This record gives sequence, structure tokens and C-alpha cells, in this order.
Amino acid sequence: MRMCILALAASAAIPAASAQHAVPTPPAATDGKAGSEPFAAQQAAANSKPGPRQRPAETIPVPVEGVSPAAQALIAAPFPPHFNADPKSAAEWKDLIERRAALIRAALPAMQEKMAVTVQPAVIGGVKAYIVTPKSMPEANKNRLLVHVHGGGYVFAPGEAALPEALMIAGFGGFKVICVDYRMPPDFPYPAAMDDAMAVWKAAVTMADPKNMAILGTSTGGAMTLAMIHRAKQEGLPLPAAIAPGTPWSDIADTGDTYKSNEWVDNILVTWDGWLGRAARLYAAGHDLKDPQLSPIYGDFSGFPPAILTSGTRDLFLSNTVRTHRALKRAGVAADLNVYEGQSHAQYMGNIDAPETREAFTDIARFFDAHLGR
Amino acid sequence: MRMCILALAASAAIPAASAQHAVPTPPAATDGKAGSEPFAAQQAAANSKPGPRQRPAETIPVPVEGVSPAAQALIAAPFPPHFNADPKSAAEWKDLIERRAALIRAALPAMQEKMAVTVQPAVIGGVKAYIVTPKSMPEANKNRLLVHVHGGGYVFAPGEAALPEALMIAGFGGFKVICVDYRMPPDFPYPAAMDDAMAVWKAAVTMADPKNMAILGTSTGGAMTLAMIHRAKQEGLPLPAAIAPGTPWSDIADTGDTYKSNEWVDNILVTWDGWLGRAARLYAAGHDLKDPQLSPIYGDFSGFPPAILTSGTRDLFLSNTVRTHRALKRAGVAADLNVYEGQSHAQYMGNIDAPETREAFTDIARFFDAHLGR
Repeated sequence: MRMCILALAASAAIPAASAQHAVPTPPAATDGKAGSEPFAAQQAAANSKPGPRQRPAETIPVPVEGVSPAAQALIAAPFPPHFNADPKSAAEWKDLIERRAALIRAALPAMQEKMAVTVQPAVIGGVKAYIVTPKSMPEANKNRLLVHVHGGGYVFAPGEAALPEALMIAGFGGFKVICVDYRMPPDFPYPAAMDDAMAVWKAAVTMADPKNMAILGTSTGGAMTLAMIHRAKQEGLPLPAAIAPGTPWSDIADTGDTYKSNEWVDNILVTWDGWLGRAARLYAAGHDLKDPQLSPIYGDFSGFPPAILTSGTRDLFLSNTVRTHRALKRAGVAADLNVYEGQSHAQYMGNIDAPETREAFTDIARFFDAHLGR
Repeated sequence: MRMCILALAASAAIPAASAQHAVPTPPAATDGKAGSEPFAAQQAAANSKPGPRQRPAETIPVPVEGVSPAAQALIAAPFPPHFNADPKSAAEWKDLIERRAALIRAALPAMQEKMAVTVQPAVIGGVKAYIVTPKSMPEANKNRLLVHVHGGGYVFAPGEAALPEALMIAGFGGFKVICVDYRMPPDFPYPAAMDDAMAVWKAAVTMADPKNMAILGTSTGGAMTLAMIHRAKQEGLPLPAAIAPGTPWSDIADTGDTYKSNEWVDNILVTWDGWLGRAARLYAAGHDLKDPQLSPIYGDFSGFPPAILTSGTRDLFLSNTVRTHRALKRAGVAADLNVYEGQSHAQYMGNIDAPETREAFTDIARFFDAHLGR
């Protein structure tokens, strides 16, 4: 019998994990007191056997303590209108992609001004990109160069819409950044995005010393950051001195605890079963979702450069983030984890004016400063 | 208008946080497909205005990827039978406390043997304690000394039941440890526990150089670790070289996002509204729950020693942990955060045979080794 100090009722027998979404016997209305005996007894009864957790409906207030008003506004926001979008054709995907890109493009001029950076379109390694340069750069960063891979589920944020995070790390950190405008579905499924990112990386390491370089990206960009290191190792390419995979989509399937525990809690992604899972299948185009180039959590993390990861307590990808953090640490890699109170997916970059945004990118910049050569 | 790249529907207006537990319009039964249009539309409608999140009932499978079978067994376990205990008298509290302590005591001999440590009762600074000594100690640790404050909501784990975590850090890390058997309610409410912990600390710094010392504890012990630093700063006492507040009860009130988002998900604490909140009030005995000595998150973290924190994605205290992590980082303190996939409160020490237990305490030991003098 296993020794079990805290979970006194633990059992060695675990039923196979179930992916059902509805509680077999939904809890009845309560008097609003979670600890009330009838309601608590009902929950205990629903969880009386080892196995999946049965969780009742709940109202979760907007957190206030330790959260800025700007971040509270992000956390309080309704679900985005497209969370369950189900485009039926390439044309419908392109329409949705363009509508979302237009919203981002409209916000760029103000962001660029706040960050005090210039943006130049470029072609690097044959791939479309942008070079983002801070108007004022610390002396220590003069020989440093970052490569940024944007997020968006492998479908969103083409062209200039790729830029926001690149602007933020350039502005808050004072770094020169190459922002990769990689090809995406519906026209270009896997491996086009990774081929483009690697072509840029191969060219970039001729523009600066890789010891002075880092790769960063959030969500899909975080997964691509990890997959780029896997692939650079396989191809014998130089590695960067540090990486910042923010809330990485490290498991493109819906495998991971918070895909369920934060489903309908995260107000950015909301559920894997909406546009997100559809984008995963569109990108994979028949490839195994557990291929480490698509789900980098399944790769070998030995020899990875130091990494800084960022997530939030409501993030649908909190498990993707902490699984990656542990995989890195288990491989002996220096890895720094930051989790923001109440935040859903990637909300640390959801409002350029929020103190938490400055904080997250300042932490990333300091991490790069500590690990990059000059 | 605020710029909001990812949460396109964000609004500046936030209704006051609500502590209601029931969704006004519970979701109807679904076809089991979370992304199905009627169910998704219903969730969107329930979350159509800025404010508290309305979360439907859900089944959360036991996570498998990146989780050992031993940890899976802890995660799969039913709620503990006492989660909603409501003792009506000092005698009823003592009965519950003793029943739980007996279960821990029964497990101690095997733990002590596995950890290869000796345990000696002692009185240090006038306070009951145990000195835990590894049978084999690395040379680097010969002049090092740890002080351990146990968990248990300020009510549980008196006497030898205080020992499990002290045994683990002594065994996995090879450290000599003083385990404080501080006084607790119902007989001794606040500030008895803190007075005892501080008396031991004052005596301990005469037994070793504080630069070679650390304080650690989990849950209530994590909160006491933080409160001890607050108080040592105020009293001008020496500080340790590092601390390990594991999933600290840093906010003794039910303030913090995961008190709600992980309610009925965490299978150790389950809900603040059970024995936990009752213990908080019993301990506080009329003191303000936001006093930094009771809820150390509200103290000033400047000048704190480097800290390593540990939690899990299902932990009711995940917010307590990440709020503490951010408060430390915002004060310029080196702070390392570790979050385990799928784990509820303090499950990283729930089974001494689980690989995650060895991993967590090895990480803490390495952190101490990096920050303590010799």
C-alpha cells in the first residue's frame, strides 16, 4: 500500500481518463454557501471514487489584490466573438484571419509610438520579416539580436499583425528584433511555418553571434521557439543563448490538465474545441499531433538554452507552460517560470499600457541580459 | 479607449467582484462536445458582460503526460473525509486533530527509514521541537542548519505529526533540520504559533551562522516562513540566506483567484468554506485577517532572502503562491516558482515514493545549496 500523508483516501486504482465534459449528475441549485452541508455532501458524493474530478458550476469573481486595474479589465472581459468559429473553407478561414488581423493593424501605430521603435519590412533567408529597432538602445544590446515568432494558432496574425510582441520586447527591453512573417494555413500547412522560421534562424546567425541572440514567442510562437531548438539541435545549427517561450502551445492536442480545469474560465482561448482545435488540425494536415515538431513537449530538452516562461492562473495553456517548465528542469536546463494572478492566455501582452505587460517584458529582458553575451 | 490586442471585447467597466457560487442559469445537459454550438453559445451568453466568470460544470480527467503513476494516484483520489468538518467546540477540534495526527504518526517510521535520518526531541528557545539529522551528510552541509515550520491550517499536525516535510528535506537534501512543534488552536490562537517560531529562530541563529541557514515550510508553514521574515525584519533579527515557502497560505482569507477557480478541483483542501476557513477564524481569534502576520502577502517583501516556491495547477493556493512569487519579484527578490501538472495542494509532498516528491525537494535542496554559505 502506498504511503500517503495528505491525501488519506488515495487509491492505487485509477480509472482510464475520461474526456467527457458534462457532469453525470449536475449539482442542484445551492444556497450560495459552498461549505453548506448539502452542497458539499453532493460534491463529495460526485467525487467519491478515484478518477476524474467532477467540478460543479461556479462564479469566479474578478481578482483585485495584486492585479492592476488594466489587467482586471482584461480578466473581466467576455469571451471573444470568434472563440467557437468553425470556418468551412479556405475562404472562410481567410475572412476570419483578415478580420482579426485588421483589428491588430489598427492598433499598431500607437503601439509603435509608445514603444519608440522603427519597423522595416525585410526578406531574410528568403522569408518575409520585419526588423524592429529601438530608437534608443542600451550599449549592452548593440551586438545583440532577437528572433521573434508570433502567435495565433498557426493561422492568425499574418503580415504586420505579427508585430505586437516584437514591438514590446524591442521597446521594453531595448533590443533589435527580427519578426518572422512565416507562411500559414489554410494555404501553407505544416511544415511551412517551421521551414520559414528555420530559414530566418539560419540567416540570422550570420548577422550576429548566436551567443548574443535569443528566440522568443508567445502561444504558437512559444511552441515554434521550442520546436526551432529541437530542429536546430537535429540539424547541428547554432543555438541561441536564451529563449522566452511564453505560454507555449507545447501540446497541440488537448492533452494537459488545464485544457479542462481552465476550460470556460480562460476568456481568450476559452476551449480547445473551438477555433483552436480546428486550427491545430488544419495546421497538422494529417501529421501526428504528438510529433515533437508540432507538439514540442514530446521532444528531448537536453542541451536547451536557458528559458523564461510566462502564464496566468486562468490560462488554458497553464499546463502546457508548466509541463514545458518541468521538462526543461528535468533535462537540467535553467528555466524561470512566471504565472500572473487571474490572467488568461497571453494576457501579459493583452494591453501594452498594463503594468503587468511592462513587468513581463522587463523580466524577459533581464533574463536575456543575464544570459546573452555582448 | 484602451488598446487591447488579444481580448478584443475588453471593457473598462468592471462590476464589483461577486462571491456567489452558483451560476444564475446553470447550463443544460450537453451532447458532451464542449465546442458544440448550443453549449458554446450558452456559455458565451453567460459571459457576455464584463465581470465575474460563469463556469459550467465539468469533468476533468486525471492527467497522464508528464505525471508519474504515483502522482496520478494522488490526483485521482476522492476528497478527504474531513474537508467540510465543522467542529463545534474545542473538544471536537481536538478530536479531529488527534485523528488526523494519528494517521501521520503511523506513517512516520517507514518515512524515517526511507529518508535515513534520526529524530531527537528537543526544547529550543523554550519551545518544543525535533532535531532531524541525516545519517549521511554532504561535507558542504556540515555547518548548515534549516528551520522547518509545519503545515496544517494552524490546527493540524501537532507533536511528531509535524515531521514529514522535515524528514523529506533532511533526507533528500542531506540537511540538519530543526522542526518546530509550535502551539496551536483551539488552546493557543494567534500569536502563539508565531511567538514559538520566532523563539526558535532566535535560538537557532546562535547554533549556526544565519548565512548558512534557511527556513522552510508548506501551506501554513509557508505562510509562517514569510511572516517570520516580516517579523525578523521588524525586530532587527538576522535573516536566513534562503527560504522555501511551499504553496504558502499567504492570504488567510479567501482572497485570490484560485480559491474559486480551483474550488472543488483541489482534492486536498477542496474549498476555503470547509474546515480551512473555520481554522483561519479560530487561529485569528478576532485579529484582522489582512494583518501581515496572519496574511503575509500584505507585508513588505523588500530585503527578503531568495525564495523557492512550489505549487500545482489544481492547487487551491496556486494564487497564494503566484501572488507571493510576484510580490517577491516586484520587491527585487530572487524567487523561483515551480508548478506541478495536475497537483492539488501540497501534493508534491503527498507521497514520499513519488518521483515528483524527490524532484521538488531536490530542487529546494539545490536552491539552498546555491544560496547558503558553508
